[in-house]
Amino acid sequence: MTLLRAAIIGGGHIADSNHIPALKQLSDRVVIVAVCSRDLEKARALADKHGIADAFDNTHEMYRQCTPDLVIICTPNNLHYPQTMEALEHNCHVFCEKPPAISAQNARDMANLAAQKGLTLAYNFQLRQSSEWALLTRCQADGLLGDIYHIKAHFLRRRGIPGWGYFTNKEMQGGGALMDLGVHVLDLALCALGYPTPDQVLGNTYDFIGKTGGKGLLGDWNPQTFEVEDAAMAYITFPNRASIMLSASFALNTQADKDRNLEIFGSKGGVKLFPFTLHTELAGELADIQFPYLEETDIQLKNTTAFLDACQGKPSNVCTAEQGAILQEIVERIYKSAERL
Amino acid sequence: MTLLRAAIIGGGHIADSNHIPALKQLSDRVVIVAVCSRDLEKARALADKHGIADAFDNTHEMYRQCTPDLVIICTPNNLHYPQTMEALEHNCHVFCEKPPAISAQNARDMANLAAQKGLTLAYNFQLRQSSEWALLTRCQADGLLGDIYHIKAHFLRRRGIPGWGYFTNKEMQGGGALMDLGVHVLDLALCALGYPTPDQVLGNTYDFIGKTGGKGLLGDWNPQTFEVEDAAMAYITFPNRASIMLSASFALNTQADKDRNLEIFGSKGGVKLFPFTLHTELAGELADIQFPYLEETDIQLKNTTAFLDACQGKPSNVCTAEQGAILQEIVERIYKSAERL
Amino acid sequence: MTLLRAAIIGGGHIADSNHIPALKQLSDRVVIVAVCSRDLEKARALADKHGIADAFDNTHEMYRQCTPDLVIICTPNNLHYPQTMEALEHNCHVFCEKPPAISAQNARDMANLAAQKGLTLAYNFQLRQSSEWALLTRCQADGLLGDIYHIKAHFLRRRGIPGWGYFTNKEMQGGGALMDLGVHVLDLALCALGYPTPDQVLGNTYDFIGKTGGKGLLGDWNPQTFEVEDAAMAYITFPNRASIMLSASFALNTQADKDRNLEIFGSKGGVKLFPFTLHTELAGELADIQFPYLEETDIQLKNTTAFLDACQGKPSNVCTAEQGAILQEIVERIYKSAERL
Amino acid sequence: MTLLRAAIIGGGHIADSNHIPALKQLSDRVVIVAVCSRDLEKARALADKHGIADAFDNTHEMYRQCTPDLVIICTPNNLHYPQTMEALEHNCHVFCEKPPAISAQNARDMANLAAQKGLTLAYNFQLRQSSEWALLTRCQADGLLGDIYHIKAHFLRRRGIPGWGYFTNKEMQGGGALMDLGVHVLDLALCALGYPTPDQVLGNTYDFIGKTGGKGLLGDWNPQTFEVEDAAMAYITFPNRASIMLSASFALNTQADKDRNLEIFGSKGGVKLFPFTLHTELAGELADIQFPYLEETDIQLKNTTAFLDACQGKPSNVCTAEQGAILQEIVERIYKSAERL
Amino acid sequence: MTLLRAAIIGGGHIADSNHIPALKQLSDRVVIVAVCSRDLEKARALADKHGIADAFDNTHEMYRQCTPDLVIICTPNNLHYPQTMEALEHNCHVFCEKPPAISAQNARDMANLAAQKGLTLAYNFQLRQSSEWALLTRCQADGLLGDIYHIKAHFLRRRGIPGWGYFTNKEMQGGGALMDLGVHVLDLALCALGYPTPDQVLGNTYDFIGKTGGKGLLGDWNPQTFEVEDAAMAYITFPNRASIMLSASFALNTQADKDRNLEIFGSKGGVKLFPFTLHTELAGELADIQFPYLEETDIQLKNTTAFLDACQGKPSNVCTAEQGAILQEIVERIYKSAERL
Amino acid sequence: MTLLRAAIIGGGHIADSNHIPALKQLSDRVVIVAVCSRDLEKARALADKHGIADAFDNTHEMYRQCTPDLVIICTPNNLHYPQTMEALEHNCHVFCEKPPAISAQNARDMANLAAQKGLTLAYNFQLRQSSEWALLTRCQADGLLGDIYHIKAHFLRRRGIPGWGYFTNKEMQGGGALMDLGVHVLDLALCALGYPTPDQVLGNTYDFIGKTGGKGLLGDWNPQTFEVEDAAMAYITFPNRASIMLSASFALNTQADKDRNLEIFGSKGGVKLFPFTLHTELAGELADIQFPYLEETDIQLKNTTAFLDACQGKPSNVCTAEQGAILQEIVERIYKSAERL
Repeated sequence: MTLLRAAIIGGGHIADSNHIPALKQLSDRVVIVAVCSRDLEKARALADKHGIADAFDNTHEMYRQCTPDLVIICTPNNLHYPQTMEALEHNCHVFCEKPPAISAQNARDMANLAAQKGLTLAYNFQLRQSSEWALLTRCQADGLLGDIYHIKAHFLRRRGIPGWGYFTNKEMQGGGALMDLGVHVLDLALCALGYPTPDQVLGNTYDFIGKTGGKGLLGDWNPQTFEVEDAAMAYITFPNRASIMLSASFALNTQADKDRNLEIFGSKGGVKLFPFTLHTELAGELADIQFPYLEETDIQLKNTTAFLDACQGKPSNVCTAEQGAILQEIVERIYKSAERL
Repeated sequence: MTLLRAAIIGGGHIADSNHIPALKQLSDRVVIVAVCSRDLEKARALADKHGIADAFDNTHEMYRQCTPDLVIICTPNNLHYPQTMEALEHNCHVFCEKPPAISAQNARDMANLAAQKGLTLAYNFQLRQSSEWALLTRCQADGLLGDIYHIKAHFLRRRGIPGWGYFTNKEMQGGGALMDLGVHVLDLALCALGYPTPDQVLGNTYDFIGKTGGKGLLGDWNPQTFEVEDAAMAYITFPNRASIMLSASFALNTQADKDRNLEIFGSKGGVKLFPFTLHTELAGELADIQFPYLEETDIQLKNTTAFLDACQGKPSNVCTAEQGAILQEIVERIYKSAERL
Repeated sequence: MTLLRAAIIGGGHIADSNHIPALKQLSDRVVIVAVCSRDLEKARALADKHGIADAFDNTHEMYRQCTPDLVIICTPNNLHYPQTMEALEHNCHVFCEKPPAISAQNARDMANLAAQKGLTLAYNFQLRQSSEWALLTRCQADGLLGDIYHIKAHFLRRRGIPGWGYFTNKEMQGGGALMDLGVHVLDLALCALGYPTPDQVLGNTYDFIGKTGGKGLLGDWNPQTFEVEDAAMAYITFPNRASIMLSASFALNTQADKDRNLEIFGSKGGVKLFPFTLHTELAGELADIQFPYLEETDIQLKNTTAFLDACQGKPSNVCTAEQGAILQEIVERIYKSAERL
Repeated sequence: MTLLRAAIIGGGHIADSNHIPALKQLSDRVVIVAVCSRDLEKARALADKHGIADAFDNTHEMYRQCTPDLVIICTPNNLHYPQTMEALEHNCHVFCEKPPAISAQNARDMANLAAQKGLTLAYNFQLRQSSEWALLTRCQADGLLGDIYHIKAHFLRRRGIPGWGYFTNKEMQGGGALMDLGVHVLDLALCALGYPTPDQVLGNTYDFIGKTGGKGLLGDWNPQTFEVEDAAMAYITFPNRASIMLSASFALNTQADKDRNLEIFGSKGGVKLFPFTLHTELAGELADIQFPYLEETDIQLKNTTAFLDACQGKPSNVCTAEQGAILQEIVERIYKSAERL
Repeated sequence: MTLLRAAIIGGGHIADSNHIPALKQLSDRVVIVAVCSRDLEKARALADKHGIADAFDNTHEMYRQCTPDLVIICTPNNLHYPQTMEALEHNCHVFCEKPPAISAQNARDMANLAAQKGLTLAYNFQLRQSSEWALLTRCQADGLLGDIYHIKAHFLRRRGIPGWGYFTNKEMQGGGALMDLGVHVLDLALCALGYPTPDQVLGNTYDFIGKTGGKGLLGDWNPQTFEVEDAAMAYITFPNRASIMLSASFALNTQADKDRNLEIFGSKGGVKLFPFTLHTELAGELADIQFPYLEETDIQLKNTTAFLDACQGKPSNVCTAEQGAILQEIVERIYKSAERL
Repeated sequence: MTLLRAAIIGGGHIADSNHIPALKQLSDRVVIVAVCSRDLEKARALADKHGIADAFDNTHEMYRQCTPDLVIICTPNNLHYPQTMEALEHNCHVFCEKPPAISAQNARDMANLAAQKGLTLAYNFQLRQSSEWALLTRCQADGLLGDIYHIKAHFLRRRGIPGWGYFTNKEMQGGGALMDLGVHVLDLALCALGYPTPDQVLGNTYDFIGKTGGKGLLGDWNPQTFEVEDAAMAYITFPNRASIMLSASFALNTQADKDRNLEIFGSKGGVKLFPFTLHTELAGELADIQFPYLEETDIQLKNTTAFLDACQGKPSNVCTAEQGAILQEIVERIYKSAERL
């Protein structure tokens, strides 16, 4: 079987520690042919570290020389749109980091072009591959939850404003805690509901702590240049009356520094995702069910596999371009609601 | 000092175990002169049990014979409005059980009449008198929380649909979990924010479990006659951009059967109310503060005292008629939002 | 409806605190007409305490004067046989304390006579009425356990040799820990297996601690007059290859002083009875299921009710005369095995 | 001092990770001269990995060329007998993996030949070298336990049917959970009792789960080719009336996946082995004694040392040929009892 | 047997809830003939409550009319001396509340007069009668501790300055936390060492919190009238080089509000008293020994019994007059050391 | 900037694993030019391991050839004095291991010479650099503790007599648990008090376990050659009436094997150091404050940095020569008190 040719766009941490290692473990299906970064030295160093043949500082030359079948986009959020469009134009499948884009329209355009070209565009929401989510899906399929009507989803850090990179730069990232953290749990919540388009969205964003400064658990950040939200809260309703309560924060005066969970309430059973617990009735009594032997899995490896499966027309649960467009629409409506637009 | 003359309207559990014992402990300020219930025997029995002189089966006669200074209203929600209006017309102060009424307009009218009459109308939200809430108030006053911008408030039962009384009767109660449980934590949340009028309200109500039936932890209920919501979720925003996430349930597939709490997030500190924990920064480090010696208090006794204080023009933190009107407006907007009105 | 007339034979603790209170709570079905004890004063005192009309020091006179419909036998084990036979001869239903008798032949004769007379003879194994056992039965009925093939049953005390009464007297009690404690869990184990007759039985009894003396947690006992086993262990197999591992002790150098439990292993699921936990597979994963809201129940009241139901021909899960005979056969075979007979 | 010359027969995991590393740590007493496996490549690879001079695919050639003083047998159970007999015939001491053999007669013959030849034949039951067992032995010697009269021994896995090798092949292994796991705790129990010959044995074996299939925690197994017991239960009595309750499982619907323990009951004290706890009386009170600083030890290194000590006539607590024959007799009687032979 | 005639001097809480109930349980040995309090009404009320014949407001009259055999002294500390001397002069045995007196010389004089009169004078240190102390004594007698060479004893409250009575009045009480709390654990420590006379004493007393005020957990206290120490620390050495570290507080910024314990270090074993744990070596390993079935006992009843035994010449472990004198000397030397006298 | 030239005196574990790694991490400020040990081979091996140019077996030659700016002294305690004096004479700054010396006079002379020479002499008490101590210092500076008046400091091992080196040799070490362990927590306690000179000192030393032998958790020790104290207890008072209770042990029959902590009591707050907890009043209630995100730090690296800062005239919290002299005076007075000198 001929190997798929992959190019990496973006030379940062996520490329180095997530995508490239996963692709290398899948060497029977894919070969990485190039790394591309604005900073050629960085690209070169990453290519050398991982034994990748070529390194570039512009995508144009990369496409010309390497003719990849697929690209992995690991750049700041504002580049997801132009780089995805360019890749699709070069007839490449695209595996893009989350969030899809910084505007709903961009995400919609990306999905449309992918559809038009018949190419796979997918987003890297790896939590879908966790053992917990796989089990949730099986429980749902087995009818253990009944109709799901409400989900509480949160991804909260107490003082986890990243002290490096461009995470607090609004132009590059499009937003803060919601864009970076909230989208992970929002994606799962939407999956559980069948990824419907939203009905109403009401939300708020805050930046008290981010703009004031204080103890940083992910390095020190500069309150003067802090432009994004440190916390976002939202309530999202759907035409079938289901709803999602969403909370995300980089900084919040709460107990744990990393508190990421979903509670999924159905007519027959409810699930708390981490650690996976199912609350239901069994044999006429209220029952709490735990699964003590869930395995830890390499969720990036599984998600990259799911992307490759999608590229090759196999069944896959990777986040699709269409789903990404819906999610981005919700994100944008939360920001607009917060600005009372 | 002359004693205030009090009459009890409604002869159920809340009169018997909360209001009458509290008033009796305050015998240096108040004397109970009558009990009034649709069911004269019930009224008589209650009066006898507590050594109260008179019992009536209609308020008209009671007002004529007893000329009370104040009345305590402990009847189904739909009677709060007519009985309060009647009491005010008889120039009585009124201490009314929660919720204020079953419509926003009723609560507004009640407040207006009380104001016009110069009488005290107050609602019995006793959690305001808990040691935890007193401490929250002191922490807020001492500046330990900074600006409060977000509150998560919930009062969740897993299978606590009351199997007795009229709790599942929509006409009498006006609603279910939100009317009966949610208002308690909503009142506290509004207190913490200074009881502002709301900006936007988005909510949903559900009745999957209530209408299906199952194991009951507060007795068995009849799914055929279940008319109210078993769960209500809402997001409420305020002009100053603060917001409240509210959840209330009689029945929900969640872990605990009684889970009642508030998380109050401020710019300097955050509080989890039960058990009271303050999350903040101290001496340059993130600090979690606990208060191991908070005393349990008799919250009904304290709230009845607060009502008497209000009647006599003393400072008091009892829930005012004006606050009740705001709260009832929010409740109504949640229900309307849920019905997409 | 005419009330059943009940007589109590035996004036000890179990009559006073278990049987009489239960019967009195069932006053719509049964009336206690007499108490009978070798010691007339004791009988009289008990009758007076509970408002029972008559007291006797011999059963002959009691049957003559009172003509009961049923008797409750609460005497030392060696009297169960003669008193039951006498009661049946007087055409009374019999509710006899456990164990059924002190020999297998006695228990068999008792069952035969009851059958011949068409009367109800039942034994008071109350654990059958616990919420845990009710749930086990429902789980089994719902197929959650599959085929049950092995049960570990134990009732162990560390230093619980009763320091009062005749518990260490072999002639009166027929044995020690097995007769007094082991039969409770053996009965449950046999229920779970459908009360089959045994295939092979291998057992041992010990009396090291009982005959040596030491710290007593149920009062002091006299090692010189200690005649029974302080511990009994047995393995019992059945024709369908199912098996029971049984352990019972008054005294054993183990951790807890009261450790009473069953583990029931089936092809689909296994149950640990206290606290009730179900180990099985669900949605393709190993699952542990707990039931956090099991209610405590009045197991004596329920078992007495079950006996009355049986007397009146209603469905009942009380221990039958036939079951008692099987259980007693196993007990006797354990003792014989221990003596290498 | 001349070094003992050792040959390894069997090239699997137990040779690679247990025996060879232990022997290499004892390089002042022994040198490994050869590895022998049916598969020459495997033998060669193992030899190279550990710096062993020779590799063979048949023992005949190995004995001819290498003239070992001792051999380590790490092959499937059914080869223990012929390979041990051959080794003894070549005047080699033998350190054989457990269980001794697949029939009692084989184990007896092996012991007889070793005795006749004056050679050491020992079995690798390493748990004898754990700190817990050493402490048990000292407690017993110090009289802290008195007379030991009952032992409960179990080695239970919930879903630990090995998904590799020949563990489910009856011809090669002779049995399942009892042969592979049960023998470990049975050996310890027998040690505590002085390794007596048994009086009576009653047991059962089961294969419900093994033949049905399901979630595997040691890889997936094939229910179609599952030929051994997944669980075995037995009760074993001894002439002095002591007894052992034994349980072993590859698969059982129980709580933990690995639950291996012994409870040893003596007239003065009782011990739970893991974590080591002694229940006794001290200063007139019931006492629970824990040993918080027991060291972890390299039990294979200690057991190999014990074997070498035995070879060289020094005191040793390694499992002897005679003990192995007694253990194998019990195992066989359990299987026969289960088959009602 | 003629009953001993007892008189109670002092009508406070300790008389009402400790001494009188204990004496009444010992009605086969003693009868209470009078209660004596400065406040006649209080004395009368107490006498009536407990069915005691006489009540007095002065001891002179009481001795004249009632001729008691023994008196129980439950008055403020400064009255212990004169009332004890008076009682001894009236040939009464004396059971005096702790501490013995407010000066060493007083306690010495009291002991001398009792000795001269041949009467029993004892102090009510009830902790000597706890199950833990009885066990400590047995462990010591059995040689499990070896030579005891160091004891850490503390009785610490976080905010337990009594808000009632005269506990903060130096003239009446002679001191604060040391006099009221510290003496309890000092007495036990001295018992463990054989009640030796001290060699050197170095100590300090503090009153920062007491004189500043703050949250009170035993009611509110008045910092203006706070005259005693809120904390005392001392190190006491003995001629045999053993030593005691003593800490006592009414108020200290420590974790628990009631933290009372002793750690007793011997050459063979060490004991932490609450919960009783013995740290030693057993079977060659470090062992921690717990006693899970220690019974709670009525320590006042046991101590009163011990006093009566002493009065009647039976063996008794009640605190003797001589021991009280030694203890009081140490207390005085701590105060003097704190004042650098 | 020119690098400081450092020489290491002493080639043991503390040099190898603490000082040299720390200095190497500070290669922008310091270069290690030589290692000096009585044993040249050891010196050479250590130098080679860490890439240090020179190795010597006498300091004379080392000073001649290498002209260091500073020396690190890591030798037995009795050499600290002569080697420090020699180093100062060679105009070197000195970073000396704890304790400063084996007599108070030596430590005083060392401090005097350093002062006279204008050189930095410091002692390596690294716990000063822990996050907990840094936080304690900030809490104290922020007034959260008020006046500190009492400190309990202990460093206890249960059976931690070092089984290697010269730790039990009195001539070389000057003492045992106090010299080796106690000084660490004594130094911190003195820091909290502002390093005052003591007023009175009362102490004791013991050697029961050390001279008897037993289980060793830091290897086996020889009771025959055990010359130092295995435990030391002391009470130290200061002119301002503050006091320290100090306990240190190599061996003591206590619970944990390593129990090292300080409790620091101030008028406003009290701190338990490990894990850091602050007990105080806040908002009118008793509060316990924890700091869940304190970072672990490399305390040796920080202390070496602090020493270099001191050498270069920068602010530094390293233990000064003057402080060392005070500490050594206290240690000596404890030993003298123990000997009743």
